[in-house]
Amino acid sequence: MMAAPDSLQGAPLRIGVVGLGRLGKRHAQNLAYRVRGASLAAVCSPLDDELTWARSALPAPREYRDYAALLDDRDVDAVWLVTPSALHAQQIVDALHAGKHVFCEKPLSLDLAECERVLEVAQRAPHLQATIGFMRRFDASYRDAYDKIQAGLIGRPFMVRSQTCDLNDPDGFFVRFAPTSGGIFLDCTVHDIDVARWLLGKPKAKRVYATGTVALHDGLREFGDVDNGVAICEFEDGRLATFYASRTMAHGNDTGSEVIGTAGALAIGRNPRLNRVEIADVHGVRNECTPTFFDRFEDAFLYEAQAFVAAVKGGQNSSEASGATLADALEATRIGSALRHSLETGQAVTL
Amino acid sequence: MMAAPDSLQGAPLRIGVVGLGRLGKRHAQNLAYRVRGASLAAVCSPLDDELTWARSALPAPREYRDYAALLDDRDVDAVWLVTPSALHAQQIVDALHAGKHVFCEKPLSLDLAECERVLEVAQRAPHLQATIGFMRRFDASYRDAYDKIQAGLIGRPFMVRSQTCDLNDPDGFFVRFAPTSGGIFLDCTVHDIDVARWLLGKPKAKRVYATGTVALHDGLREFGDVDNGVAICEFEDGRLATFYASRTMAHGNDTGSEVIGTAGALAIGRNPRLNRVEIADVHGVRNECTPTFFDRFEDAFLYEAQAFVAAVKGGQNSSEASGATLADALEATRIGSALRHSLETGQAVTL
Amino acid sequence: MMAAPDSLQGAPLRIGVVGLGRLGKRHAQNLAYRVRGASLAAVCSPLDDELTWARSALPAPREYRDYAALLDDRDVDAVWLVTPSALHAQQIVDALHAGKHVFCEKPLSLDLAECERVLEVAQRAPHLQATIGFMRRFDASYRDAYDKIQAGLIGRPFMVRSQTCDLNDPDGFFVRFAPTSGGIFLDCTVHDIDVARWLLGKPKAKRVYATGTVALHDGLREFGDVDNGVAICEFEDGRLATFYASRTMAHGNDTGSEVIGTAGALAIGRNPRLNRVEIADVHGVRNECTPTFFDRFEDAFLYEAQAFVAAVKGGQNSSEASGATLADALEATRIGSALRHSLETGQAVTL
Amino acid sequence: MMAAPDSLQGAPLRIGVVGLGRLGKRHAQNLAYRVRGASLAAVCSPLDDELTWARSALPAPREYRDYAALLDDRDVDAVWLVTPSALHAQQIVDALHAGKHVFCEKPLSLDLAECERVLEVAQRAPHLQATIGFMRRFDASYRDAYDKIQAGLIGRPFMVRSQTCDLNDPDGFFVRFAPTSGGIFLDCTVHDIDVARWLLGKPKAKRVYATGTVALHDGLREFGDVDNGVAICEFEDGRLATFYASRTMAHGNDTGSEVIGTAGALAIGRNPRLNRVEIADVHGVRNECTPTFFDRFEDAFLYEAQAFVAAVKGGQNSSEASGATLADALEATRIGSALRHSLETGQAVTL
Repeated sequence: MMAAPDSLQGAPLRIGVVGLGRLGKRHAQNLAYRVRGASLAAVCSPLDDELTWARSALPAPREYRDYAALLDDRDVDAVWLVTPSALHAQQIVDALHAGKHVFCEKPLSLDLAECERVLEVAQRAPHLQATIGFMRRFDASYRDAYDKIQAGLIGRPFMVRSQTCDLNDPDGFFVRFAPTSGGIFLDCTVHDIDVARWLLGKPKAKRVYATGTVALHDGLREFGDVDNGVAICEFEDGRLATFYASRTMAHGNDTGSEVIGTAGALAIGRNPRLNRVEIADVHGVRNECTPTFFDRFEDAFLYEAQAFVAAVKGGQNSSEASGATLADALEATRIGSALRHSLETGQAVTL
Repeated sequence: MMAAPDSLQGAPLRIGVVGLGRLGKRHAQNLAYRVRGASLAAVCSPLDDELTWARSALPAPREYRDYAALLDDRDVDAVWLVTPSALHAQQIVDALHAGKHVFCEKPLSLDLAECERVLEVAQRAPHLQATIGFMRRFDASYRDAYDKIQAGLIGRPFMVRSQTCDLNDPDGFFVRFAPTSGGIFLDCTVHDIDVARWLLGKPKAKRVYATGTVALHDGLREFGDVDNGVAICEFEDGRLATFYASRTMAHGNDTGSEVIGTAGALAIGRNPRLNRVEIADVHGVRNECTPTFFDRFEDAFLYEAQAFVAAVKGGQNSSEASGATLADALEATRIGSALRHSLETGQAVTL
Repeated sequence: MMAAPDSLQGAPLRIGVVGLGRLGKRHAQNLAYRVRGASLAAVCSPLDDELTWARSALPAPREYRDYAALLDDRDVDAVWLVTPSALHAQQIVDALHAGKHVFCEKPLSLDLAECERVLEVAQRAPHLQATIGFMRRFDASYRDAYDKIQAGLIGRPFMVRSQTCDLNDPDGFFVRFAPTSGGIFLDCTVHDIDVARWLLGKPKAKRVYATGTVALHDGLREFGDVDNGVAICEFEDGRLATFYASRTMAHGNDTGSEVIGTAGALAIGRNPRLNRVEIADVHGVRNECTPTFFDRFEDAFLYEAQAFVAAVKGGQNSSEASGATLADALEATRIGSALRHSLETGQAVTL
Repeated sequence: MMAAPDSLQGAPLRIGVVGLGRLGKRHAQNLAYRVRGASLAAVCSPLDDELTWARSALPAPREYRDYAALLDDRDVDAVWLVTPSALHAQQIVDALHAGKHVFCEKPLSLDLAECERVLEVAQRAPHLQATIGFMRRFDASYRDAYDKIQAGLIGRPFMVRSQTCDLNDPDGFFVRFAPTSGGIFLDCTVHDIDVARWLLGKPKAKRVYATGTVALHDGLREFGDVDNGVAICEFEDGRLATFYASRTMAHGNDTGSEVIGTAGALAIGRNPRLNRVEIADVHGVRNECTPTFFDRFEDAFLYEAQAFVAAVKGGQNSSEASGATLADALEATRIGSALRHSLETGQAVTL
């Protein structure tokens, strides 16, 4: 349990959550009931059933169907965007223009120029917090690894191996989503890119190479996408990262990272244990696995919300403690786009 | 995250926390900020610094120095006792007489006759919830094991092996506490007794044997206590449990249980991993361990509070879902006392 | 791979293996092909098919149907007894009288008086090596634990928890064997007793308590035996051991031990992994398990043979390096018999 | 323990071991004492101390200082080459011309043209066994994984992740070896390449990309080599492999592989446990690691020798059971050379 800084004692940060899909609901409940110093002042969704849900599950926030109306609400201090990726960039810009702090789920944008435009707007509003939701930074184990690296436990970290591997969905929902997802590297690996940059001290990327295969979901071929992708990213100063993303795991969501240094290595989440239970039976000795990223990162979503609120109330905007900045998100998109380009061309891509 | 039943939508259960030591503070914060359907209405402590802490860390509960005054507060529906063990029995009786639901940290009492007296009083107030805080029942892994057993995964469970092992405290705080702790079996193993009964279907105990040794803390000898104790408990129908309790672990709080059935076995917490990080360095491949039961059962304390509130609001008093009943606590004390007697006499004790 | 001492360079130790059942075959092949300094000079079995097997699988040893005839063979230096337990004591006595070194599978005898008689005979032949086959002492992991304890890694060791748990045999072969096995404690736990004494520095046992249950094999009841047994053994100086033996495991042979000291603990074989393969599939993340003690201790059987031969050739008879002495075996039988008595009476037994 | 086929009953295969360095000694002892059906007939080394060692540790093989003289020995059926890599190709050719079976440590050659020349010679002597020592194929865990894949346990395997990671040698012996080692990919990764091809069904490689970094051993820079290298290899039909090789591990030799299929995944050697001992102390819960590939693959070196002898005696030359063929070794060199080229150019290399 993270300690509450003194700054949480004042008037609550009034937040409006935009988008109440599965992840939006989770964020809204966290903000309503589990984040000290915050109040869930408003929700925004164009969908009846999402607003109906809000009425029964949340403490009576004001309701909006229109994002512009929410931005007009002077009793909302910050917006929390859990909307389709294609809307993120413009919604962030509008929020900043409306003078509101903004938390936005990843990705910032699949388009580099858009990312840069948002950064420009944000640079003109340095008093506003703008954070992109790379929640792994708030997972207790990732955070512990980060702290151990800072403390020198593994010497100089020079390599990260990171993966985002989802339980296979036989229905292939993500196939229908393929035209807008940006492909496996911008949709999944973008988390690993952010983790690698964060854990390696934010080095600049120099060159990437990526490839992949379609193991199960042939429907991806028409979009030039794959259901299993691998990549190498070379940073300056000889730092390296390798990435693996999969949509076809049989055992669960297997998301983790490894950091290798000159005096040791740290592995985060090497076995995606569901909990502390081990079963011994005819199958051997085994543990069940986290089925989805929701189960794996449930606490991280909460901690990132707490950190955002603490950062705003403490005036620490854009700081490390508050999560990935817009600049971090831009870099993740830049590298992810290069991976996609490498996958398409079969060539290494220099950044 | 446990789902919130509909019953949590009504007026909150107004709770008064009694005792604001380390664990009391934790309970108070959970009830104040993390338990839906509850409000922290009052706190009670004779100590200035605890009340001072309450003013800064809690949402302005009413303050009492005197337990009787708290019981007179008509706007308190339930009391939450985190007081010295010797006070538990009378405080529960008083709470029930005052018409208040009661949650009390374990143990109910070290004295069997007192336990029975509390049960009698409670039986005359069946509309009031009275729960003893055996928090392991609310740990997600223990709960998963319980559900798997109910579902038949390991066939007929016939044996439990359970342990409560604390990181060695070189200062030996518990040595000073020895005169009133009831000894290692009533202080520590009582949790394992409750776990064994719960997971084995609440069989009656027939015979126990216990012994132990002083590995490090010679000061315990004058109280007839040990810092490492082992025991066997035979239940009816051939069910068995073995227990281990230690005050002298070098690696952390190593608390866990194993349930063996005719078709498989479940181990809960076999390796007391601190988190999902593995370190590879000159020491080999390793994980750090949970240092204290606080770290290990942090979430369980929250879930037990949520379950208590849900039970009261749903009218499910004394049910399985709400935790250990007074009768369960009586049985745990009965078996724990027999273990102590066996340790003292070197003989098996028939119950 | 253990290094070969210089003493292995001389004339080979000529060995006669007696009994060519499953384990006898294994010993014979080890001695014939894998133990430097030894030659398999003779085999002895009353059974045609065992001798037929010997002809095809071994390098032409001399064949005997009669043990006395083998003992008359002057070109046999040592006998290797893999015979029914009831024959062990007299066969050892006869071998010693014939001037031959002797290796005998455990147990020495189920009868204490017989054990003592063998010791007397052996004491009059101190130039002859007599070893009982407690092979765990030669398992690389047990040996590593022993060495680490000697080196002080865990401080003062004060407690052992040890178990011998077999994969359930639905046919219940051991039920038919029950009349002569001595019961679960003398048949299985005797290994754990030897391990506990060995790892704790050979303390004297003072008091034991044992009980058990019949989980699956009702046929054991008529012999007063159980298919799951638990026990506590108190040694002098506050050292302790707890034991678990089972015939009903669902996942494999799960045999291991734990040694707890004042500065740390060692667990040997906590998860009975078959090999280095981990499977991730719909069952979770798992490893398969060693199905039998044969698979688990295959190398240990070889190393114990190598150590016996090295001890004889190096003149180190009765030394630690050569395995369990007759005196060790007597102690194991003494404690195992007391466990059986405790199981039968429900009382603690003082030794 | 692998069963001995009937063919091992005839006259032994007379073997001459060439080169008695650390690994040569190991092979010689295995062949002398632990491989049924084989006899160590001769040894060959230009070094006095190696021949001196042979006299004391081996059963009196004939001694040669000159390879040509060994090949003239008509009582040698097979040669076993554990010589410097640069000599391998010509020595194999000479052995085949002399009518002798040949086992040769990897690599066949660092030069593709040489590899092809050896294949041509071998194709004209199909009655002679010629095997390259990729010992991982004989490790019990790799073999188990191979069998499970063949049995369909993980569906269609489409990806291998494999690594060869050595404990850091502060003296940097391999730096002095760098001019002739061929670099990290031809020296280390060649094993992983062979594993990937073997486990994926020997697909043809289409394109590779590799890069790396110097983490600790700056002396490598002048040779264009790295101490940590990563690579991607794309095979036909969408099969993939990723490789990692390191000279700088802090915890031990961490060599393992993972095979991912459409219905599950297998990990071999994920944690390089030294044995079955787990230590719980101030460092947490940990296991020690295999320090070198010798310790990790000790049994595999034995099994590969047994398989070679069984193959020759059974007439199964060039079969799967007998290990990597010259053609397999050629492919491994082809891919390894491409990785090196990619490292040097920073470009993907099409094969």
